[in-house]
Amino acid sequence: MSLSKNRLKYIRSLKEKKYRSEYGTFVAEGNKLVCDLLPLLKCQMLVATASFLATTDTSNIDEVIEVNDNQLAQASFLQNPQQALGVFFQQRAESTEDVKDQLVLALDGIQDPGNMGTIVRLADWYGIKNIFCSHDTADIYNPKVVQATMGALTRVNIHYIDLADFLNKNKNTPVYGTFLDGKNMYEQEITPHGIVVMGNEGNGIRPETEKFITKKLYIPNYPAGQETSESLNVAVATAIICAEFRRRS
Amino acid sequence: MSLSKNRLKYIRSLKEKKYRSEYGTFVAEGNKLVCDLLPLLKCQMLVATASFLATTDTSNIDEVIEVNDNQLAQASFLQNPQQALGVFFQQRAESTEDVKDQLVLALDGIQDPGNMGTIVRLADWYGIKNIFCSHDTADIYNPKVVQATMGALTRVNIHYIDLADFLNKNKNTPVYGTFLDGKNMYEQEITPHGIVVMGNEGNGIRPETEKFITKKLYIPNYPAGQETSESLNVAVATAIICAEFRRRS
Repeated sequence: MSLSKNRLKYIRSLKEKKYRSEYGTFVAEGNKLVCDLLPLLKCQMLVATASFLATTDTSNIDEVIEVNDNQLAQASFLQNPQQALGVFFQQRAESTEDVKDQLVLALDGIQDPGNMGTIVRLADWYGIKNIFCSHDTADIYNPKVVQATMGALTRVNIHYIDLADFLNKNKNTPVYGTFLDGKNMYEQEITPHGIVVMGNEGNGIRPETEKFITKKLYIPNYPAGQETSESLNVAVATAIICAEFRRRS
Repeated sequence: MSLSKNRLKYIRSLKEKKYRSEYGTFVAEGNKLVCDLLPLLKCQMLVATASFLATTDTSNIDEVIEVNDNQLAQASFLQNPQQALGVFFQQRAESTEDVKDQLVLALDGIQDPGNMGTIVRLADWYGIKNIFCSHDTADIYNPKVVQATMGALTRVNIHYIDLADFLNKNKNTPVYGTFLDGKNMYEQEITPHGIVVMGNEGNGIRPETEKFITKKLYIPNYPAGQETSESLNVAVATAIICAEFRRRS
């Protein structure tokens, strides 16, 4: 098999959500990530160098295309392509709406692919199995998100839902959110289970989401009251919150 | 003033460290960031839309160039340019080598500009005034780093130094680092002051740096022992560590 113009066009089209949804596939790149995903997800097409293919079991892959570094660079979305690019079939998250016995995240319009992928990766670290995202949150299959998850996307269920509707259905579950006018999280009671809402990078949590929040938390800066950055990066804030929930549970 | 070809070429050249070092300047973009920096740093050139200029005090700026959105896009390093691009003079970090009465970060080859900027931003949040970086750590004046700091770069001193030499000079200070084979950080004694070393995204802390580390910490995953992501993003790990140091001090 060679990397025909049509195949190249197909791969490049997967940068756009429209085409990813149409084909039900997505791109993952790099020696390590591709190797991690191959046993877990059905691979439609593997574009890789001879040295990668020499050490990889490709028996379950629909189409295997050996390329040199220049050809790989043409297909790649990375600045520094690394040996392999896989087109994988998307994995549908199992539908889960009842979350009362677990800690879950709800993302209200996270835009940056790097933040999104980093949040999925840290959710996996902290044993968070479900993330509920508003429809305008970055797509888990965006190539930049996929790379930033470092493979965690196979271990965390990502649900794109109507967030207000989801929170309304879980009214008996504690809902946490971080706010600059919230209360010091180290001095607040927190439950081991519940929903932690994280908001958009620029605008935070939407008013229509905020009304479902039962406890507003503040991540204290140091020293208290000192003038500092006005906020933390959203992935960083998510990490600090998740670490604290798990430390106390 | 108009945006001449020469000025455009000058601005675009500042994407490269070589030219930033030669001219001693760097680029910051966006309405909010430029407004935050204007009172703090000497501005050499401001390229901005009429609406931005109408509400901004430009009296101390060497050169003010009014542009429309298309012209701004030609100069900008952002995907979505926003009203203003400033060329500012770099601010030299004051030389500090004795760090015994403070908490500082040491970065051992952090590569990703987004991670670097995010770390500076969270250091500011946690009142960390000095960050010591190996010479191969991402440049603080890289446009992507500048944007990710969200202005924190004026409040944190960033030192590029020989890391082994720096750690050798601070042998009486506790030096912490995160390792997958470290000890649960919640069960370890930690001092309010000390040096926290964070390593490169792919390779972690170098062996020649590791030998100076007096306490290896592990950020516990959850549930303990469960198979999860192999590691956390470095900015996320830095955040969790800094939060814990500050919580306990």
